Amino acid sequence: MLVIMKNDATESQVDAVIREIEHLGYRGLPVPGAQRTAVCIVGNQHEVDDSRLLSLEGVKETIRVTKPYKLVSRETHPQPTVITVGPVTIGSGQPVIMAGPCAVESEEQTLAIARIVKRHGAQVFRGGAFKPRSSPYTFQGLGEEGLRILKKVREETGLPVVTEATDHDNIGMVEEYADIIQIGARNMQNYSLLRRAGLCTKPILLKRGFAATIEELLMSAEYIASEGNPNVILCERGIRTFSDNTRNTLDLSAIPSIKEVSHLPVIVDPSHAAGRREYVIALSRGAIAVGADGLLVEVHHDPAHALSDGRQSLYPDQFGQLMRDIKAMSRLSEREK
Amino acid sequence: MLVIMKNDATESQVDAVIREIEHLGYRGLPVPGAQRTAVCIVGNQHEVDDSRLLSLEGVKETIRVTKPYKLVSRETHPQPTVITVGPVTIGSGQPVIMAGPCAVESEEQTLAIARIVKRHGAQVFRGGAFKPRSSPYTFQGLGEEGLRILKKVREETGLPVVTEATDHDNIGMVEEYADIIQIGARNMQNYSLLRRAGLCTKPILLKRGFAATIEELLMSAEYIASEGNPNVILCERGIRTFSDNTRNTLDLSAIPSIKEVSHLPVIVDPSHAAGRREYVIALSRGAIAVGADGLLVEVHHDPAHALSDGRQSLYPDQFGQLMRDIKAMSRLSEREK
Amino acid sequence: MLVIMKNDATESQVDAVIREIEHLGYRGLPVPGAQRTAVCIVGNQHEVDDSRLLSLEGVKETIRVTKPYKLVSRETHPQPTVITVGPVTIGSGQPVIMAGPCAVESEEQTLAIARIVKRHGAQVFRGGAFKPRSSPYTFQGLGEEGLRILKKVREETGLPVVTEATDHDNIGMVEEYADIIQIGARNMQNYSLLRRAGLCTKPILLKRGFAATIEELLMSAEYIASEGNPNVILCERGIRTFSDNTRNTLDLSAIPSIKEVSHLPVIVDPSHAAGRREYVIALSRGAIAVGADGLLVEVHHDPAHALSDGRQSLYPDQFGQLMRDIKAMSRLSEREK
Amino acid sequence: MLVIMKNDATESQVDAVIREIEHLGYRGLPVPGAQRTAVCIVGNQHEVDDSRLLSLEGVKETIRVTKPYKLVSRETHPQPTVITVGPVTIGSGQPVIMAGPCAVESEEQTLAIARIVKRHGAQVFRGGAFKPRSSPYTFQGLGEEGLRILKKVREETGLPVVTEATDHDNIGMVEEYADIIQIGARNMQNYSLLRRAGLCTKPILLKRGFAATIEELLMSAEYIASEGNPNVILCERGIRTFSDNTRNTLDLSAIPSIKEVSHLPVIVDPSHAAGRREYVIALSRGAIAVGADGLLVEVHHDPAHALSDGRQSLYPDQFGQLMRDIKAMSRLSEREK
Repeated sequence: MLVIMKNDATESQVDAVIREIEHLGYRGLPVPGAQRTAVCIVGNQHEVDDSRLLSLEGVKETIRVTKPYKLVSRETHPQPTVITVGPVTIGSGQPVIMAGPCAVESEEQTLAIARIVKRHGAQVFRGGAFKPRSSPYTFQGLGEEGLRILKKVREETGLPVVTEATDHDNIGMVEEYADIIQIGARNMQNYSLLRRAGLCTKPILLKRGFAATIEELLMSAEYIASEGNPNVILCERGIRTFSDNTRNTLDLSAIPSIKEVSHLPVIVDPSHAAGRREYVIALSRGAIAVGADGLLVEVHHDPAHALSDGRQSLYPDQFGQLMRDIKAMSRLSEREK
Repeated sequence: MLVIMKNDATESQVDAVIREIEHLGYRGLPVPGAQRTAVCIVGNQHEVDDSRLLSLEGVKETIRVTKPYKLVSRETHPQPTVITVGPVTIGSGQPVIMAGPCAVESEEQTLAIARIVKRHGAQVFRGGAFKPRSSPYTFQGLGEEGLRILKKVREETGLPVVTEATDHDNIGMVEEYADIIQIGARNMQNYSLLRRAGLCTKPILLKRGFAATIEELLMSAEYIASEGNPNVILCERGIRTFSDNTRNTLDLSAIPSIKEVSHLPVIVDPSHAAGRREYVIALSRGAIAVGADGLLVEVHHDPAHALSDGRQSLYPDQFGQLMRDIKAMSRLSEREK
Repeated sequence: MLVIMKNDATESQVDAVIREIEHLGYRGLPVPGAQRTAVCIVGNQHEVDDSRLLSLEGVKETIRVTKPYKLVSRETHPQPTVITVGPVTIGSGQPVIMAGPCAVESEEQTLAIARIVKRHGAQVFRGGAFKPRSSPYTFQGLGEEGLRILKKVREETGLPVVTEATDHDNIGMVEEYADIIQIGARNMQNYSLLRRAGLCTKPILLKRGFAATIEELLMSAEYIASEGNPNVILCERGIRTFSDNTRNTLDLSAIPSIKEVSHLPVIVDPSHAAGRREYVIALSRGAIAVGADGLLVEVHHDPAHALSDGRQSLYPDQFGQLMRDIKAMSRLSEREK
Repeated sequence: MLVIMKNDATESQVDAVIREIEHLGYRGLPVPGAQRTAVCIVGNQHEVDDSRLLSLEGVKETIRVTKPYKLVSRETHPQPTVITVGPVTIGSGQPVIMAGPCAVESEEQTLAIARIVKRHGAQVFRGGAFKPRSSPYTFQGLGEEGLRILKKVREETGLPVVTEATDHDNIGMVEEYADIIQIGARNMQNYSLLRRAGLCTKPILLKRGFAATIEELLMSAEYIASEGNPNVILCERGIRTFSDNTRNTLDLSAIPSIKEVSHLPVIVDPSHAAGRREYVIALSRGAIAVGADGLLVEVHHDPAHALSDGRQSLYPDQFGQLMRDIKAMSRLSEREK
């Protein structure tokens, strides 16, 4: 960390900064410049809490040089993490397609969609039993009944299932039924839920909050890892910007950015980002092309009667097209090796 | 709600839309235009779930005309809500100043600051016992010991206290000790926590998420109100934008916007928005000038040794200046009456 | 257009709205709802100026149903526009790669890079002679000497060249030397320059402003087209968001969004969006995968000594890799046909 | 400037960085840390161009410590700039209210509004003769006829006038007629127009682009100042964010932020930020309360028939209310002195 002094800071103010740094257990190295002095902090192994330094007289700002996350950082763990869920490996180089409806609505609906996505080659089934909805007056999910239906899907199709846990009360139940536990974008900084997820023995699919930076996403993954669960799959699902042509702006540059600094696998949810099925196939191709480890895609056999987010669900034949595109791209990158 | 058809939609597609609207229990009125047809939905008392309509062939988009919130809307409750907490009334026209440290650090520190803010005229004491921090490796608050210290503050100074509940596990405990329960910005869409807050008998201070629209903030307040707790104080605390001169961009236009559509009181937290004490007094004056019902301000007697957010805490004499400014502005608006 | 009345609007206010609509030359159709009345405007062929309507008593808001652009709209011109520049066609289905340095620095440097990008298969050469720089104290480009160098590049390599015009004074000169005239992101709403570009006989490459919506980009293209120049190539180059992992956030969803509503070709500039060469190859693949008609990429044979933006310029061998990736993807989509 | 090396950078890469810094004419001071080395650049009086450094092997990033602007910086010019326009001084401590219609529509309309705003105490008259409009099909202003009308306003009322120049062709003409020349938000980075404004002898009112940082705004002011015109009035008019309750989000924290780093006066345009007259009075009070040197407000005697932006224009009696509020606040701050 670098402490930047104001351009009129006095020598005794610089001295006070150095003393405070020493008090924190590190060493302070003053670097005099033409217009101002900076003080470099050396000797710290962990993040320095800069609150006290920032409050000293004569201090203009601090600049962090080292990232605040550690367990999820590529610097401490250079090899990519590969997560195994039943027959599926995530992060191994081949994209993993997770597909299904936004919400589990009934056994019949869920099994029908599961058969479709399996036939087209999906490797994981997705479907929400607990739905975080912005209005208290809309469908909130089937709860445990939904989880039981997901279990049947796994039994019948052999597909592992991923579904969302929304709070302390249901994460234990979700862990029992699901193969991968999803933490949604709105809960990305629900630290209490993250800590609880860190105690789970199943992998966590952690979605980026729609106003979260990459560093904040990785700090949230660090919460989970620091409690003992190293199996975190990150998911880019669009960020909130002024741009109004899609529901959220899919930030595909997040994929190479995350891979540069972290060893965790990262997938993309084009459905929630776009908010409209018309763009989902193109964005899915884009996601794989930039290097995503997989996709989380909504598919519905009858979107016009879906209980939530029907607008962004692919029709079965569109999902077939998506799978053919992805497979062709995968063969392509295979041949390149 | 208005259903906009594509410009090449067929008559039978328009008919299918009208039939679906009737199936939902409303009436569909087609409005032919030069370039396309729209279908108006009439007869609905509540929000229409447009998922099914959006999935029909020939439909371009839907446009909502009515807001999805009801209990917190000024249309259903024209008189402003006034909330009474001990000797303090919030929303009555006189700004209420809530002040104190970011975190409760010790009994000595907390009482020292409480005496200072009380002497300068603060009406409510603030201080965090449970701290949501983006890094798992930084100070997380004193927990129940912090709550006990806040109780002593109330006993000694007579000031009601506001403190944050961060999850299901601690909201009950917070309710026991505090006079106002704060839900933080990161939990604004933690619907499970909102529902639990709706069961509390104490007022809730609900902070706007840093990427939340006004409508989403009001929908979250609606969650609390729909469970039976009508006493919600909204709080603008800055939104996330590209602008980097402050930690977040304080959106003061939110105050007249909220007052136009809702009857709930709304206060402003200039400390978290600015992230630096240098701007807090100016932004506080601005907040009162646009019509805020109060302020939530951080004050520390020794910011250089604060355990969190010392950078944005006012010095005691700065807080004195702020209180003098606010009082003068209040007298001004009194005289105008 | 739909005029939404306030929920307490009187009948005579609705009547005044209808009279004003008739005064504008259209017909107003009232649609009474449970909570409020809306008035549909029918009979307009062009955009309705809603200023007067919005100022009438009892009016809450207006909602546009038809887009304000016409010439660049796919509704009025369903077939995609294909632009021919010498031997190159843009918008014909095969991606066109435009590559070269950020700035023309010298004849030697420019020709060296031109030979490299030509050898790897680029179809158009890019290089700036007039550089819009945010600081008045940094390199501003070689001006007309730069244009003469670009002419030599074309003569030697046969590659058409694209270069930026920054104002009225230089657009005529740029038109003389260049094959495609670029209008930069900062000038996207410089309407005076857009009108002048509309008088040019050469194609215009119009970059999206970093805070512009798709609709605003298309309105700016409409300015050019309305003056008589239909040959506009749009270019997505990243938008400004809170996300700080790249210089700007590349909005790849803009590609399918634009193609849905407009017939103009659209290319992607991954270099300016990323701001760092490390992400350029991945984002280039992503751009082609979502359907872009081409790329605008910065390449430098000696980025360490580039006079501007060296950080985002690809090394020659990286550009070779990019071209191989793009060609493989193109063959893939060929085979699919 | 600080050059941050990658954590696996070799000693010879650090040496190459130091040599390059020396080659640029400065001194490079290596600062070894626990995880990585940083190199401080010392001895530079001006901004260091970091392009070459960023392109060297082993370099992770650079961090600027000094701001890139100089003439407009408070560090080089600690006293606030006060600008005199006829009888009016801007930046002297008393807020200056500039008011009038969005566009000059006719002599009759303009004089009528001018008499109204003068009677209520406005000190400067505003009105657009050249209108930058996002659609080529809407009213673009009266041009020179509009300027002649503004001249009559000054002759009759004695109010100085401010009006916008939109390009090279009209800035000379605007300079002839107007007392203050406005550069609009969309032209904030039209460097060619900024340079031309720097040659004018009249003050420039420079509006912040709706996606510009404070630093970019100051760099644009630096362009004007560096050509010889030191009289620049900055204007905050809202930034583009996700928030949709107002047209743009008024960033009132920009006022104290700018005043901290620059000596230039700064005013606020609440009308364009809000987009609706309902919020203009509250935001005007807020602007003055945070320390703005003045306001730019739209007023129309007949907004329902305004040719542009009628929705955000105050009625005459609302403007009277605004002036009373501002005067009371000014007396208040007078008394405090």
